[in-house]
Amino acid sequence: MQRLNVALIGQGFMGRAHSNAWGQVAKFFKVPVRPVMHTVFGQETENPQAFAENWGWQHASTDWRSVVNSPEIDLVDLATPNFMHAEPALAAIAAGKPCVTEKPIAATLDEARTMAEAAKKAGVKTFVWFNYRRCPAVALAHRLVGEGKLGDIRHVRATYLQDWADESIPLAWRFEKQWAGSGAHGDLNAHLVDMTRFVTGQEITEVAGAIAETFIKKRKRMTAAADEGDVTVDDTVLFLARFAGGAVASFEAARQATGNQNACGFEINGTKGTLKFNFERMNELQYYDATLPRAVQGWTTIMCTHGADHPYVGNWWPDAHLIGYEHGFVNEAYDICRVLAGEPPVVPIPDFADAYQTQRVLEAALVSAAERRPVAIDEIK
Amino acid sequence: MQRLNVALIGQGFMGRAHSNAWGQVAKFFKVPVRPVMHTVFGQETENPQAFAENWGWQHASTDWRSVVNSPEIDLVDLATPNFMHAEPALAAIAAGKPCVTEKPIAATLDEARTMAEAAKKAGVKTFVWFNYRRCPAVALAHRLVGEGKLGDIRHVRATYLQDWADESIPLAWRFEKQWAGSGAHGDLNAHLVDMTRFVTGQEITEVAGAIAETFIKKRKRMTAAADEGDVTVDDTVLFLARFAGGAVASFEAARQATGNQNACGFEINGTKGTLKFNFERMNELQYYDATLPRAVQGWTTIMCTHGADHPYVGNWWPDAHLIGYEHGFVNEAYDICRVLAGEPPVVPIPDFADAYQTQRVLEAALVSAAERRPVAIDEIK
Amino acid sequence: MQRLNVALIGQGFMGRAHSNAWGQVAKFFKVPVRPVMHTVFGQETENPQAFAENWGWQHASTDWRSVVNSPEIDLVDLATPNFMHAEPALAAIAAGKPCVTEKPIAATLDEARTMAEAAKKAGVKTFVWFNYRRCPAVALAHRLVGEGKLGDIRHVRATYLQDWADESIPLAWRFEKQWAGSGAHGDLNAHLVDMTRFVTGQEITEVAGAIAETFIKKRKRMTAAADEGDVTVDDTVLFLARFAGGAVASFEAARQATGNQNACGFEINGTKGTLKFNFERMNELQYYDATLPRAVQGWTTIMCTHGADHPYVGNWWPDAHLIGYEHGFVNEAYDICRVLAGEPPVVPIPDFADAYQTQRVLEAALVSAAERRPVAIDEIK
Amino acid sequence: MQRLNVALIGQGFMGRAHSNAWGQVAKFFKVPVRPVMHTVFGQETENPQAFAENWGWQHASTDWRSVVNSPEIDLVDLATPNFMHAEPALAAIAAGKPCVTEKPIAATLDEARTMAEAAKKAGVKTFVWFNYRRCPAVALAHRLVGEGKLGDIRHVRATYLQDWADESIPLAWRFEKQWAGSGAHGDLNAHLVDMTRFVTGQEITEVAGAIAETFIKKRKRMTAAADEGDVTVDDTVLFLARFAGGAVASFEAARQATGNQNACGFEINGTKGTLKFNFERMNELQYYDATLPRAVQGWTTIMCTHGADHPYVGNWWPDAHLIGYEHGFVNEAYDICRVLAGEPPVVPIPDFADAYQTQRVLEAALVSAAERRPVAIDEIK
Repeated sequence: MQRLNVALIGQGFMGRAHSNAWGQVAKFFKVPVRPVMHTVFGQETENPQAFAENWGWQHASTDWRSVVNSPEIDLVDLATPNFMHAEPALAAIAAGKPCVTEKPIAATLDEARTMAEAAKKAGVKTFVWFNYRRCPAVALAHRLVGEGKLGDIRHVRATYLQDWADESIPLAWRFEKQWAGSGAHGDLNAHLVDMTRFVTGQEITEVAGAIAETFIKKRKRMTAAADEGDVTVDDTVLFLARFAGGAVASFEAARQATGNQNACGFEINGTKGTLKFNFERMNELQYYDATLPRAVQGWTTIMCTHGADHPYVGNWWPDAHLIGYEHGFVNEAYDICRVLAGEPPVVPIPDFADAYQTQRVLEAALVSAAERRPVAIDEIK
Repeated sequence: MQRLNVALIGQGFMGRAHSNAWGQVAKFFKVPVRPVMHTVFGQETENPQAFAENWGWQHASTDWRSVVNSPEIDLVDLATPNFMHAEPALAAIAAGKPCVTEKPIAATLDEARTMAEAAKKAGVKTFVWFNYRRCPAVALAHRLVGEGKLGDIRHVRATYLQDWADESIPLAWRFEKQWAGSGAHGDLNAHLVDMTRFVTGQEITEVAGAIAETFIKKRKRMTAAADEGDVTVDDTVLFLARFAGGAVASFEAARQATGNQNACGFEINGTKGTLKFNFERMNELQYYDATLPRAVQGWTTIMCTHGADHPYVGNWWPDAHLIGYEHGFVNEAYDICRVLAGEPPVVPIPDFADAYQTQRVLEAALVSAAERRPVAIDEIK
Repeated sequence: MQRLNVALIGQGFMGRAHSNAWGQVAKFFKVPVRPVMHTVFGQETENPQAFAENWGWQHASTDWRSVVNSPEIDLVDLATPNFMHAEPALAAIAAGKPCVTEKPIAATLDEARTMAEAAKKAGVKTFVWFNYRRCPAVALAHRLVGEGKLGDIRHVRATYLQDWADESIPLAWRFEKQWAGSGAHGDLNAHLVDMTRFVTGQEITEVAGAIAETFIKKRKRMTAAADEGDVTVDDTVLFLARFAGGAVASFEAARQATGNQNACGFEINGTKGTLKFNFERMNELQYYDATLPRAVQGWTTIMCTHGADHPYVGNWWPDAHLIGYEHGFVNEAYDICRVLAGEPPVVPIPDFADAYQTQRVLEAALVSAAERRPVAIDEIK
Repeated sequence: MQRLNVALIGQGFMGRAHSNAWGQVAKFFKVPVRPVMHTVFGQETENPQAFAENWGWQHASTDWRSVVNSPEIDLVDLATPNFMHAEPALAAIAAGKPCVTEKPIAATLDEARTMAEAAKKAGVKTFVWFNYRRCPAVALAHRLVGEGKLGDIRHVRATYLQDWADESIPLAWRFEKQWAGSGAHGDLNAHLVDMTRFVTGQEITEVAGAIAETFIKKRKRMTAAADEGDVTVDDTVLFLARFAGGAVASFEAARQATGNQNACGFEINGTKGTLKFNFERMNELQYYDATLPRAVQGWTTIMCTHGADHPYVGNWWPDAHLIGYEHGFVNEAYDICRVLAGEPPVVPIPDFADAYQTQRVLEAALVSAAERRPVAIDEIK
């Protein structure tokens, strides 16, 4: 079987998730190309050699440019912070190599557009790790909407609520605009915009109003406990929007929504039914089928673990033997292999152009919050 | 419209529930006979006059015999403790009057059989306040099983769990065999046996094994705090059983199942589907329809409040404007009026013969626990 | 005991709910004044005499002015459509009589302000039937916030979702601006604004953005099936807002949110905890207590039926013997009796001034949607 | 670091789960000995070479005896059907090697006793893959009971419900007594007996009554579709039991409980609180803390994913980034490494002696069902 030599750039939380994905995918899926964990890049201070040994990467490097340009590397995988996506991605594209990056695609809209344009011009295949699309319940939602099960979509409400960012949390890169681009917005609303575009199959056309708020304006620096620095990103962003098909929508990302550790969810109401999802019960999809006899209508909790009928899970365990967070990455690694082998993915993967579209919506929300006015997505280039 | 003069015997918790039912029924339902709250009986110490004024009874009396025998009374309603059902019920039957009694039908099997036989012989209409049958979700379950939605029934599991009876609770009549007959068993398992017979439409044929246990063996007397008396009834009874159609079953009543305040529920598994109910969410019925396409199968929470399609609720409020505990009694009062007017009830009401059948099963469970052996219901007369 | 002669103006859905409340309150509560169901007003075509007989009103009338001005009437209760609140309310105030009206307080902001000013000037006690405040779970939420259980409030999200208004529903008064003032907004967002102000104890200071949308623009007239008329109110209104204490908020009312029959709810995140409520499980309050040891933190479902510790329910049934929709009205009737007797209500009741404040927020949202800009509540008079 | 050469005997569903565990454990945990996936055994027809390549085993063999006896092997891991546990386990013990086997420990009580005695005599460390103990929620339940959070335990109810075994399923080894020992009982009740002993810390002393039933008595042979064979094991076993501390209990295993794909759960009521678990939401533990102020008591859903406070999960992902079925095996592999390195496991692992104790309870239930009488566990040797 053809081999696919992967290079991983970055070794934080996402570096672990990607390493696991490349290590697991061929064990559970019949891959059309066999990914090889070739090289991992890390800063010297990060000790990439130890990381490589732990996760099974054959080589470690502290020079990402040489890794990206190495003739042995077939796919460049970026698990770096947002501000470090554009440069290596453009290098990979320049080298004519497929590239997959963490989400959001970049820290700024300019970078996102440049990346999308470069990929298009070079004709290089690109991917973004919007891994929640590959949660079987979300993929099933996409399918059911595609089959017309919801009728006309009227309402979308999407919230991604977390609660880890209280006063005790120091000033990590995620709280500074120069590294992160934005706060909860780019981290969490990015998933919501991607997921709702994916599930509805529709584009967002306007942000009708928005609020961005930073509750905790100063945090201790990570280096010296006594010193404080300014938080320059949002703690929360809420916005109202409209979809191309006429639906109205609300979005909310938050990091201080006490009790919600990872409540990434949506509810989509159509004229024939409704779908509801919350990642905290990621194996389940809620479906209200308004076409059933009224006496037995209700909210149905679909346990999305039936191999023969639900996406991806047939490669894992028997019915109701749940899968977890990292499986979305493994499922996406499988689909990346398929696309690189010329086969269609199980459900669509966003490429840089698609992720740029998500980024435009996110930017529109920030503009709307700052300028206190509605913003059409067409305004945002 | 024809009037129905009701006499209420008893004025405790159940006396309040019945008074409310007779007062509300004609406001919400088109009754074929109009119930009149004629007379309430209470002990002198209970001040029946004040009770009558509060609830709208026209008269109060401290002589139940004269009330039962009064030519003005058309229906005798018993809300007394279990040991005080048989005597007034038999008096009502002797007087040729319809009679409705609280559950369980009586404190002993002998009394239950005597009451059922007397009613049959006299040709008098009788009823028992197994009010949970008239919870719309339970009535809907009965209907769905009747329509064949479950296929062949394989499993029944029924639990009625409460947690009020810790050490602080004194020795009320409910803890003494001479007044109550049994403890959690007659109070709670009585509902479960009635409900599962009602929903499945099948008789129980055998108790295969049972445990009766009293965790707290002495309680303070209600009269003098320093004095303790023996608890002579069970705190909990569990039993295994078989239904006529081949299903296996488990039952459990408990008063110290911490966290369960009123968890009266069942799950019934058939070859085509499952129904599940818990009174703590009494407006909801859980239905798993295994005949739907597998991709969208799941547990459906039916909010049983849709007037046009769910029993009784069309007489109350709009969709999802919930009803509560007392509505089951009002619904049953309506059905009693219907039966007395010669019309069929919305769903079947148990009469004394039917409640005697439930009592036989309860007795079989006690015999099984005491004699540590399986007991066929046919043994119990 | 002092008697309180009540006159009810109106006899639709709300007329039934109010009649039930006045009939039930003294049976379950120790009222300090005893309400007497004196007179009901209805149009001749509505047959108020039959309504009076059914519900136990002593008199019926087709002349509301004479009812309001009758010296026998002590309290005027308005259960009419929104556009018919102001005139009788002002008449009651002019007659120096306490007055309670359905929500929203009026069809227009002008009417609401006029009513509030008239009541203030006359020194008349007024009330509004924002009955959800008296749902025990909501009253408990108010108490817990008052005790500081949530810490600083950061987020409020409130949605009232229904799904009854599909194409088949004809052009009732609720769909015409001249009668209803607004659509889902006044009907549903009114509850949300009232409840969140009540639970948080804070005022809303700004609407930051809003969407109002009418999906179904024409409906069949009720009179002639072939004829269609314009829907002149919203089907849905979403808006973003800020509370005085710094919290950000989102609100949404909808009538076509398939699967949500009466999902009136909120989630309020504070620095120490979160509270969550959904009327479809109205006996339950969700509480996340972030001050507990982390190992046992979680979402706690409080069954708000414990008489000794939860508001109102001690007057109803034992623990977990649920109450329903209409009980909120009975609870409010009790509190009205208390206030009229000079006693404090169990939890605060909105008067006309308070309801006018809610109306200002609702108006601000409509202005924001129409003019596509943020609107400070101070702008709205 | 010291290496631990593992040999895996068997390569079905459990073979995959074990292979995954040995492959993942050192990536996520700091293991005190490093497991090496040395050799996998399979029948020739199973193609162990392909299995080895897929999962990363260094060698494959079709001769289990030589594998077990190879001086290179440090740990023998049995993933074979129940009837194939005893022989290789005894061989491993005879060779003085630690051995871990799938559950139930053996197909017959005799085998189980022989295995436990042999291990004891040889002083060999043994383990059983009762993997649900290592589900963080179950391990947390064990801890909370150990801390006295439940007070005195009064009730245990445990059900393991599945629904895969309808008429369409052919006569696999699981349906024949000679291979499986029993049906749902050994497969599912084994987990329940192990888990409830583990969580309560108490032994079961008596089976008070039992039902074993086979609904589908004949199934198509796997070899020839036209031919049918007898099902010689149970489809369902229910039994009542008593724990040493006085608690009463019910157990139920079923394979035709429609709608329950993998509902392995328990509820344990104590005088101070209750714990409830269902594997279908395996990341969650339900806790009712009856020592909290009554106003805020309720069922708390603990998301058991907080690394600092919940067992095992700190080695996986951030809060509420769920783990799945296979993680229990990885967690157990970690604890096996700890025990073999002389360190205590995070929570106790059952050895053969402990699993034999579970087997005695299972046997008592079968005897009780067959002989229709209570059976003390002391009877069963």
